[in-house]
Amino acid sequence: MHGAMDAAELSAFLDREFPQVSGDFAIERLTADGIVMRLKVGDRHLRPGGTVSGPNIFALADVAVYLAILARIGPVALAVTTGGGIDFLRKPEAGRDLIGEARILKLGRVLAVGDVLIRSEGREEPVARANMTYSIPPKR
Amino acid sequence: MHGAMDAAELSAFLDREFPQVSGDFAIERLTADGIVMRLKVGDRHLRPGGTVSGPNIFALADVAVYLAILARIGPVALAVTTGGGIDFLRKPEAGRDLIGEARILKLGRVLAVGDVLIRSEGREEPVARANMTYSIPPKR
Amino acid sequence: MHGAMDAAELSAFLDREFPQVSGDFAIERLTADGIVMRLKVGDRHLRPGGTVSGPNIFALADVAVYLAILARIGPVALAVTTGGGIDFLRKPEAGRDLIGEARILKLGRVLAVGDVLIRSEGREEPVARANMTYSIPPKR
Amino acid sequence: MHGAMDAAELSAFLDREFPQVSGDFAIERLTADGIVMRLKVGDRHLRPGGTVSGPNIFALADVAVYLAILARIGPVALAVTTGGGIDFLRKPEAGRDLIGEARILKLGRVLAVGDVLIRSEGREEPVARANMTYSIPPKR
Repeated sequence: MHGAMDAAELSAFLDREFPQVSGDFAIERLTADGIVMRLKVGDRHLRPGGTVSGPNIFALADVAVYLAILARIGPVALAVTTGGGIDFLRKPEAGRDLIGEARILKLGRVLAVGDVLIRSEGREEPVARANMTYSIPPKR
Repeated sequence: MHGAMDAAELSAFLDREFPQVSGDFAIERLTADGIVMRLKVGDRHLRPGGTVSGPNIFALADVAVYLAILARIGPVALAVTTGGGIDFLRKPEAGRDLIGEARILKLGRVLAVGDVLIRSEGREEPVARANMTYSIPPKR
Repeated sequence: MHGAMDAAELSAFLDREFPQVSGDFAIERLTADGIVMRLKVGDRHLRPGGTVSGPNIFALADVAVYLAILARIGPVALAVTTGGGIDFLRKPEAGRDLIGEARILKLGRVLAVGDVLIRSEGREEPVARANMTYSIPPKR
Repeated sequence: MHGAMDAAELSAFLDREFPQVSGDFAIERLTADGIVMRLKVGDRHLRPGGTVSGPNIFALADVAVYLAILARIGPVALAVTTGGGIDFLRKPEAGRDLIGEARILKLGRVLAVGDVLIRSEGREEPVARANMTYSIPPKR
């Protein structure tokens, strides 16, 4: 796969375009078919009992697939999330960041689809799985 | 439907158990089959361009179905979101709160399912639709 | 809503384009925002115990939203299902047809989204809910 | 993973319990975390143009995750599909069977979750991805 943006460029893009959330996330690395991203878990992400809230896990899935798409098509294309689904599989472990592995399954003319497996850092069993779909604007 | 909690009790429950997000939401009213909830849109919910972010819309769907379930089964039961799906249909209008109408479709022994239609306040066309599933713990 | 096809035209379209399944379904009526369709339950749709199989319920949801879209945009546009989600809520009642009420939530330039509530005929509580998304080809 | 049923036992189970569809499917092999299954594509699965219909692809996803669960917990447990989601990514190739690779992501006390990647035989790019959830009855 020939990439349009590397990890540093994606990180700068996130800081510039999404300053309200960019501090929550870090790009671990680009992969052959996607990206590995980290949610830097802080108090604001937690629910009583120390688990990361569902919407924050959804946000990790969303940003991971989004950046995996931009890694291929570049920042000029404004991809918009059109929908997604998520299953919460296990309670995240307290005191650990979440690591999301996203892969692109389709990168079409108008739609891109990816899925994500999310784990507490250092653990094998997944905390959540998600699928996300994005609309790719024309004339990119 | 005989309710286990009314709007004031649900609101107090939200403040007590979810203090980090309770300020974002308000219960508009309970309905025959669910609840109407408001996301009080503020700068922290927005993306560039003034639209509410996807994870915040997901959060509104999640809390709405969750409270609709608690309205029926009461606060003793700890319902946990097991999964959900969402379609983002239109860009929310800038400067308007989001209103989510949730209805319970199933309230079973172990699973509860609801769906939600979300609109910008005062508009007819929906901004998003979502479905959410919750696990109901035993011995409630 | 100004419709592009009425129930008789949709029924003829289904017979012509989908002869392998058209005998399974009947259009009950068009509604303000969608369609009501019947799955004429026969032995081939059943699982042991007399319930309709999940894929057949999915098929009802798919065809209902599909025809609701064609009712608006006409037969020239070849809409393609890009995805969907379904929750199976209750066991269908043996010996009853399934009735699906579909409504269009978005009919955009490239994507259309609808949802469906499916019941055993004459019963109030839903058997399943589903959401379906379709890609609308350009230059329609 | 210690399995409760092997491929031959699963195949016999499918023939006995689901005779109406068992001829459509074949177990390719069990894997470390799931199963590989084949949909033996025939005329009855096709839509005009020679593509496999969406509900038939959904059926492959459903049976694959279902048998992957039974491979672990055995035939005594009656798992019921509670819901799922599917994205149709590419048109299946005419004249080729579909191969679904399912993996179990969670096998809990009351819920099991798996996902599936479906390809036309011999092709790399996926035709569909799906996620399926099953309710596991108590006292298994």
